[in-house]
Amino acid sequence: MQKYKITISYDGTNYAGWQVQNNKVAIQPLIQKAIETILRHPIQLTGSGRTDAGVHALGQVAHFETPLIIEPRKLRFSLNALLPQDIRIIEVEPASLEFHARYSATSKIYHYHVHLDPTLNPFDRLYKYHFLKACDLNLLLDAIPHFLGTNDFTSFTNQPNKGSASRDPVRTLFRLDCIQAPGGIRLEFEADGFLYKMVRNITGALLDIASKKIQGSEIPSIFAAKDRKKAKTCAPPHGLFLIQVNYKTSSNDS
Amino acid sequence: MQKYKITISYDGTNYAGWQVQNNKVAIQPLIQKAIETILRHPIQLTGSGRTDAGVHALGQVAHFETPLIIEPRKLRFSLNALLPQDIRIIEVEPASLEFHARYSATSKIYHYHVHLDPTLNPFDRLYKYHFLKACDLNLLLDAIPHFLGTNDFTSFTNQPNKGSASRDPVRTLFRLDCIQAPGGIRLEFEADGFLYKMVRNITGALLDIASKKIQGSEIPSIFAAKDRKKAKTCAPPHGLFLIQVNYKTSSNDS
Repeated sequence: MQKYKITISYDGTNYAGWQVQNNKVAIQPLIQKAIETILRHPIQLTGSGRTDAGVHALGQVAHFETPLIIEPRKLRFSLNALLPQDIRIIEVEPASLEFHARYSATSKIYHYHVHLDPTLNPFDRLYKYHFLKACDLNLLLDAIPHFLGTNDFTSFTNQPNKGSASRDPVRTLFRLDCIQAPGGIRLEFEADGFLYKMVRNITGALLDIASKKIQGSEIPSIFAAKDRKKAKTCAPPHGLFLIQVNYKTSSNDS
Repeated sequence: MQKYKITISYDGTNYAGWQVQNNKVAIQPLIQKAIETILRHPIQLTGSGRTDAGVHALGQVAHFETPLIIEPRKLRFSLNALLPQDIRIIEVEPASLEFHARYSATSKIYHYHVHLDPTLNPFDRLYKYHFLKACDLNLLLDAIPHFLGTNDFTSFTNQPNKGSASRDPVRTLFRLDCIQAPGGIRLEFEADGFLYKMVRNITGALLDIASKKIQGSEIPSIFAAKDRKKAKTCAPPHGLFLIQVNYKTSSNDS
């Protein structure tokens, strides 16, 4: 058996997300099926994590195994020929059998794009959240430290499935930067992992702070409450990009 | 009467072009209707020229007249509230009564985006032409001077309507630059005016030269033939952007 790591970029606009939700077209099954069509045997394609409906990716990572000897470059070409143009395979690399797209990840980087100017370029409409309320970005910047470090993020996550067993809600947010971008800001998040809707919920809270709907000083008590109802605002999916998944060692080390 | 100049940006993906073609949704009537809805009287919205189905614009210009006193900034906000998000009014300015979006234009700038790398970013798929043949860009660069200056561009235009009276086919191409861009090139065109499909037909010829389908030295005889059949390739619409329309004096001079 040989394991392969693939890096994927996609425009999430037309998809139900990485994985099947309510029988709509999802990205993971499309890629899995394309690999199976080329290799002519069933495979299991495992992603680094799900992205929600409408969320985009520049560097989603997934792995699969095959007993066949394949040429990575050729597989990439064949996959891109089969897949729709809004899903592109950026790289195919051999990986060690220990490599796991999800469990080997040491950190993930997400960016959230917020447009604040009155007019949003039509070419950005599917990729930036147009936030029209008056904002004081200094309030947002002052509130960032409340989110950094190791915390129980229960108040900033939603349950993907009501009946599912709850995962450990403690995550470490290494970095949360607010970068000036043309007409708005880009929020850059890096953590050891992210809970369901965590980036969008933190972004929603930060924009509520910037627009004076809530105060930054309320964040510690919202964390302490461990209750999603305490921070209700969730930013929409289309401003969110999974940028990169980081791994401890190069995936092709054995 | 007061005349107004408006500057418009649009993503042409979902439209039949600037003006009505085959009863599909076009951009000019949508904007005209939005202005009429706000001003509550009929107007005529005249553009600097048509853009074809699928062609994009960063700086299309149009004009209209109204007897009403309007606040340009307020009209821009109201229009952007009414219009779909893939059409944005960038600016509304008062103009002299002599100003004409088409006849007062001294030059227009178009850009054509060509992606040459094997993999095209999914976010560029609607805005760059993915040209997959092997290219020698030096051949393209060497051929550019053949297109510059004042020429009869009959061989590089199509008739928009078979029955329509033919316009003067002589145009002056001031500038045609080939700029390196990430993964490909951007062809920048500036002329006193452009005939129907002229940029896409010149781009098609340049890519035929780069991919050795035709030779650059054939261009003078193609011009001399004054026959569209001599240069058959037309690049697809989605790589094309109307960037800017230039006018002799500021439009709000009287």
